[in-house]
Order: sequence, then structure tokens, then C-alpha cells
Amino acid sequence: MNELKHRILTAVKADLADIEAALTANLTPEVDFVSRVAEHILFSGGKRLRPLLMVLCARMCEYRGSYAATFSIIFEYLHVATLLHDDLVDDASHRRGRPAAHTLWGRETAVLAGDFLLARSLSIASRTHDMRIIQTIADITENMAQGEIHQIQKKGDITLSETEYRDVIRRKTAVLFQGACRVSAFLANAPEIQEKALADYGYHLGMAFQMTDDLLDYIQDSQTLGKICGADLREGKLTLPVIHALNTATPSDRSVMIQIIQNPCFSEAEFQHLVGLLYQYGAIAYTRNCSDGHVQAAKTALMVFDHSSSRDILLKIADYAVKRES
Amino acid sequence: MNELKHRILTAVKADLADIEAALTANLTPEVDFVSRVAEHILFSGGKRLRPLLMVLCARMCEYRGSYAATFSIIFEYLHVATLLHDDLVDDASHRRGRPAAHTLWGRETAVLAGDFLLARSLSIASRTHDMRIIQTIADITENMAQGEIHQIQKKGDITLSETEYRDVIRRKTAVLFQGACRVSAFLANAPEIQEKALADYGYHLGMAFQMTDDLLDYIQDSQTLGKICGADLREGKLTLPVIHALNTATPSDRSVMIQIIQNPCFSEAEFQHLVGLLYQYGAIAYTRNCSDGHVQAAKTALMVFDHSSSRDILLKIADYAVKRES
Repeated sequence: MNELKHRILTAVKADLADIEAALTANLTPEVDFVSRVAEHILFSGGKRLRPLLMVLCARMCEYRGSYAATFSIIFEYLHVATLLHDDLVDDASHRRGRPAAHTLWGRETAVLAGDFLLARSLSIASRTHDMRIIQTIADITENMAQGEIHQIQKKGDITLSETEYRDVIRRKTAVLFQGACRVSAFLANAPEIQEKALADYGYHLGMAFQMTDDLLDYIQDSQTLGKICGADLREGKLTLPVIHALNTATPSDRSVMIQIIQNPCFSEAEFQHLVGLLYQYGAIAYTRNCSDGHVQAAKTALMVFDHSSSRDILLKIADYAVKRES
Repeated sequence: MNELKHRILTAVKADLADIEAALTANLTPEVDFVSRVAEHILFSGGKRLRPLLMVLCARMCEYRGSYAATFSIIFEYLHVATLLHDDLVDDASHRRGRPAAHTLWGRETAVLAGDFLLARSLSIASRTHDMRIIQTIADITENMAQGEIHQIQKKGDITLSETEYRDVIRRKTAVLFQGACRVSAFLANAPEIQEKALADYGYHLGMAFQMTDDLLDYIQDSQTLGKICGADLREGKLTLPVIHALNTATPSDRSVMIQIIQNPCFSEAEFQHLVGLLYQYGAIAYTRNCSDGHVQAAKTALMVFDHSSSRDILLKIADYAVKRES
């Protein structure tokens, strides 16, 4: 797995450097303080996956201009804006091992720094003078807010269906991946068949990525160290493994699970018991199958493109999305 | 004063009805809950001043289309989005006599409903397919976030200069008024001279409006009932009356003022003593003069337009902005 990660990172090293430079260059508002808050979270070890997708997709569409890195950071800013607001929403104390912005500068600054990044994303998008790009950004921001709200509204609701879950993760995660990929086709003036293919690739990659995230929250600590599992459940977020298990368990196991789910202070032993039930009812395998299915669909979508090193990396990224361990 | 308000409201009755209808019609996301939260604050007695300005300015520019009301609500959504985030920032328990959204639905929902309204504003803007409009909306959102952050950063800072204060209120208030007025010129394809005039009108009106708001926070309770004065000072927000008085007071009065300012739990007697000093050092009159100056500039800007009933109402609104008592 580290081998795959290493090969991807080596291949995109120059692109990542361009993206980092653009992230900094576009953080120069007149109010320095905004930069400091935004930088704290922007430069705390994010994978830059979303801008990277845009840059690679643009290259695959034979984009020859020099704005890909600049426009790509829209997708990192949007992502980080939602992280700033989410940390506040979840009252998280840490993000990627560093204190969350709102604990350092207060809730107010975290909210407003998120607003600033949203606004700056829009400004950068409007510089493209391409209505399709602007419309895509508008759609993404609306969907992300609605997805997050839907998730909060359904907190702790054990009747959440798999269909609702899929709709939530589509809005809160997949739409941003999809937008990052699709926008590159607009930027490159690629034919519609390529635009559609990239939108499909991004959508399926985003779904697989989120399902894997949701899965890792249950099974990660058995493989890697240093991260606490069960965070989603503690916040009342029901994700696919639990939804599937609730649907397939016997009535008595179902009530055991519900008891654990509805007590946010569940013990480690209770959590491990729940994870055991997830395995027993095939919910872990089911979730993995679903995310694998999305990865296959993502890779298939890329087949409308000729072979290229960019396509090769995008295929590897799809594999990595579900095989990663953190 | 009520006479002026009554004449304005009578003249714009039909426009306000159109605006209300558009506000509701554009709140139909698939997630009903968002609507409910947004409606709570949207329909809690706001003046609809910003959309109204756009509709009236468009008519003055002889706009003949039917989209003015629809596009005008961008400016109410943006305004309400900042209210949702501000209430959270200020930890306000009430807004316009009703419980603040975050006390009813939690901080998370208030943040996300604000995000949704920002996103929806952007969607509506992108429907215009006019890059100038989209760029204006992008500028507004960036400025508003930066202005609010600057204000928070300077909380309780007695060295805040009048220049900094003006910059904060320009960003957090005047830029939105300015944008609402300017956008109407774009929508109507009005000549540049009219666009510039409307931008000037909106800017000066916004400055006057905010200065009056800041003034009312010190002098309102002597004239009207039911609202607590000194809210800005309790939150550590230094506004023009205090800034001016600090600059002109004797060293001993200055330290008395600083003592009151730096204690957010000041008593009513201390507050009244401070207000007395504001009068004594001409700070109330100075603030009123400044806002009157902006109103004059706003009205002068409109003189490039021929006489019309719309121009007449816009002139009245400028007067009302500084003469209102709440």
C-alpha cells in the first residue's frame, strides 16, 4: 500500500508543489489575520487530493494553459472551509493532530475564516469567466451545505436508510470530487464525452473515498496506531457499515446494536462488540464491496481517454482511495 | 419620522410583496429542514432594504425585465447568512425579539444554514449569466468576511482608529448596499455613468446606515423603548462615537472612558456616564454629521438620473437611513 502511495506521490511531486504555491499566493487578503487562520488549517498536512485531481484531469484533457494549479485550489479552499465549519459543528478539539482553529482563535474566527475561503473560492472561479465553472462551484457549495445539514438532522436516527446515506455522502463529498474533475474538462474545452467521463470518475471516486473513510472509522485501529475509532458513532453519525448491519441483524442483535449506538459514551468493549457484529453480519464486507464497485466504475469511466501517464496516475489514485489505511 | 417611513412603505408595497414571494420561491431545497431554519430568520421582520434597493435602482435604470425581484433576494440571503453567522459569533440569544436560530436548532445548523444561503445566493447570481454580477457577489462575500474578522480581531482594542473603523463598516455593510445598487445597473444594461452613480449611492447609504446603527446603540433608549443600549460596547465593538470621544477627551476623562470600555460588565450608571461624555466631547454630533455627510453624498449621486418616482423613493430611503429611531 505504501508502495502505491509512494508511486503516486513521486509522479505528482511537481504538481503538488505548484498547488502549494497557488494556495499561498491566493491567501493574500488585506487582513493578514485571515491568512494566518486559513494557513493553520490549510497547511496542516492535507493530501491536496481535490486540486490534484483537477490538475491531472486537465492534463489528461490536453489542457495547455497555465491556470490549472490556480483554479484547482478552489477545491482545496472549499474543502478546508467545510472542515473549519465542521470542526465547530462537531466541537472537535483537534484536526490532523493539531488544535482545531476554533480552539485557538475562537468560534467566531473559525466561522468567518471558513466564510472567507468560500468567498475566495468564488472569486477565483469567477476569474475563469466560464459560466459552466461558476455554475459547478455554486452547485457544489449548495450540495455540501445541504448534505451536512441532512446528516446533522439525522443524527442518532437509527431509521436512516442506505439510500439516504448515499444521498448524504454524495452531497457532502462526491459532488466536490465530481466538480473538481468536471471543471478541468471545461477549462480544457474538452468534448462533452470527456466532461461526462470525468464527472463520472469524480463522482464514483468521491463515493468510494467517503465509504472507505466511514469504514476506516470502524476497523482502523486494528491496523494502524494513533487514531481513535468510533468517532462517527460518538457523534451520532450512522454510516453504511452500521446501516447495513441494522438491516440484516436478528432482532436481538439489532437491539444490542441500537443500545450501543444510542449511548454516545459507549465503552471500548461495547464498541468492539459492535465491530464484531458488523463483521458477523457482513457489513464490513458489504461496505468494502460497495466502495470497490464505485472504484471500478471510476476506473471504467476513464477508458474513454487514451493511455497517458496522467490517466495512469488517476487510475492509481482510484485504487488508493479504497486501499489506504488512514 | 413615522410619516416618512409610512410614505416609503406605501410606495414600495407591491415591490415588497414580489420580494417576499421570491424569497419563499427560492427556498425550496430538497432538504426541507434548511428551509425551516432559513425561514425562521428570513421571515422575522427584516426590512428587506437591500433587495428593495436593487429593485428600485433597476426601475430607475428603466429595467423592463421580470427578474429584478428574483435577483434582488441575493442581497437578502447574503445579509441573513451573515446574521446567522454573526449571532453565533456574538453568542446572541435573540434576534429581532425571537430566539436566535442557533439557540433553537444548535450552532451546527445555524452555521450550515448560513452556508446554504451563501451558496444559494451564488446559484441565483450565476443564473444571470453576467460575469459583472457574479464578480460583484464574489467581492461582496469576500469583503464581508474580511470586515467581520477585522472587527473581531480588534475587539476591545482602544487604539482602533477612525480609518480602521470606516474600513470595517465599508466591508461589512457598505459593500453589500453598494453591490445591491450596482448590480441593478448591470441587469438593466445601464450606461457606466449610471452604474457608477448607483455604486456611489449604495456605498454612501451603507456607510450612513451603519453609522446610524452604531449611534443608535448609544442613544436609542432615551427615545424608544424595548431595546437595550450598549450592546456593541458589551461585545467590545468600538464604533465611531467612542473612537471620536477617545480622541478628543482630556487624559482624565479618557481613562474614565477606557475603564468603562474595558469592563464588559459595566453598570447602567457607568454606561450613562459614558454616553454623557460622548455628548460632552461632541462625539454624538460628530457621528451624526458623518452619517449626514454620507446621506448627502448618496443623494447627490442620484442626480445623474432624471426625476422619477423610483428616484424619489431612493432619496427618501436615504433620509430615512439616518433619521430612523430603530
